[in-house]
Amino acid sequence: MLRAAGVGLVFMPATAEIYPPGFATTVRVAGLTDCLCGAHRPGHFDGVATVVAKLLIQSLPDIAYFGEKDYQQLLVVRRLTRDLDIPVRIEGVPTVRERDGLALSSRNAYLSPEERRIAPNLARVLQRIAAALTREPGAVARETARGLADLKSAGFEVEYLEIRDAGTLAPVTATVVGPARVFAAVHLGHTRLIDNLPVAPEA
Amino acid sequence: MLRAAGVGLVFMPATAEIYPPGFATTVRVAGLTDCLCGAHRPGHFDGVATVVAKLLIQSLPDIAYFGEKDYQQLLVVRRLTRDLDIPVRIEGVPTVRERDGLALSSRNAYLSPEERRIAPNLARVLQRIAAALTREPGAVARETARGLADLKSAGFEVEYLEIRDAGTLAPVTATVVGPARVFAAVHLGHTRLIDNLPVAPEA
Repeated sequence: MLRAAGVGLVFMPATAEIYPPGFATTVRVAGLTDCLCGAHRPGHFDGVATVVAKLLIQSLPDIAYFGEKDYQQLLVVRRLTRDLDIPVRIEGVPTVRERDGLALSSRNAYLSPEERRIAPNLARVLQRIAAALTREPGAVARETARGLADLKSAGFEVEYLEIRDAGTLAPVTATVVGPARVFAAVHLGHTRLIDNLPVAPEA
Repeated sequence: MLRAAGVGLVFMPATAEIYPPGFATTVRVAGLTDCLCGAHRPGHFDGVATVVAKLLIQSLPDIAYFGEKDYQQLLVVRRLTRDLDIPVRIEGVPTVRERDGLALSSRNAYLSPEERRIAPNLARVLQRIAAALTREPGAVARETARGLADLKSAGFEVEYLEIRDAGTLAPVTATVVGPARVFAAVHLGHTRLIDNLPVAPEA
């Protein structure tokens, strides 16, 4: 698959190369990791930050690409490379979606046919909120409440649905005044799905 | 002074280059930092590990030298460079001492003449313990207790006096069976002094 995509070189270290005997070091990014997925998955971003720092230092690429579906992860990686002076440019890549809007994810394979039918409603609800807030930036509370109800009635168990600053992830609870994004994590049966969309033009 | 010592290049970044706005990343080494100075100075080694990781990544030296007086710091730095794959060799440098045995330290300048007279007893007590345990490896408890009494009667307030494994810093409480070191931290008036010595030949 990678060769067909024009890839010339793959760096795929073995686990033992990543975690040698006595491995004891953690890279932790504060602030950005306290909310959203960080609040619901304790320690998750410590693991991400540590292994990404290692992979980047091991391979020293000029540019590294991270998908916007894991937007919080993208910000964490950008922060740690700046903070640790790793000489790499971190580029975000827009989320790739199925034709019905569902964000591509390895977890989609776990969805039953019925769950797969429900799943695209996540992106639809986020898109509706993003459009509404772009038109009416002061309607954050109303649109969040409405979106929450929509997600529940579509059949999702909602972990979070929040509008946050696109750069700092500071909560936006009343009015969107700068680049922001709407973030959600939901459960559908045993499968956890996340997605996010920009609320106002980000540049 | 550096030029006279034959130094060709000094890398001395400004604080703002080290801690940019929004700086939020910490490098933490577990295990090695729990004991000795780590137990008495919470967060100290997180700061050390973070800034040393940054300086090494910024400057990418072939070899970096760290003094054995801060032996725990030397182990922490060696561990983090291995764990984060920073391509540098970490070399320990034996402690440089005054003629009376006092380990060189910027803190020695804070000692009053009376305290300066007492200070060399720290190295003397450690030397006596190291010699005794090299002769009689099973006398850890007796020599530690005797050393503690000696330090107190010399006028020190003792923070810790411990025999630990030279590689892992695991406590040695009964018998020295491999390379170990005797570590101490003491207070003399307002000044905190540390020192350590090998107990058995380390190679």
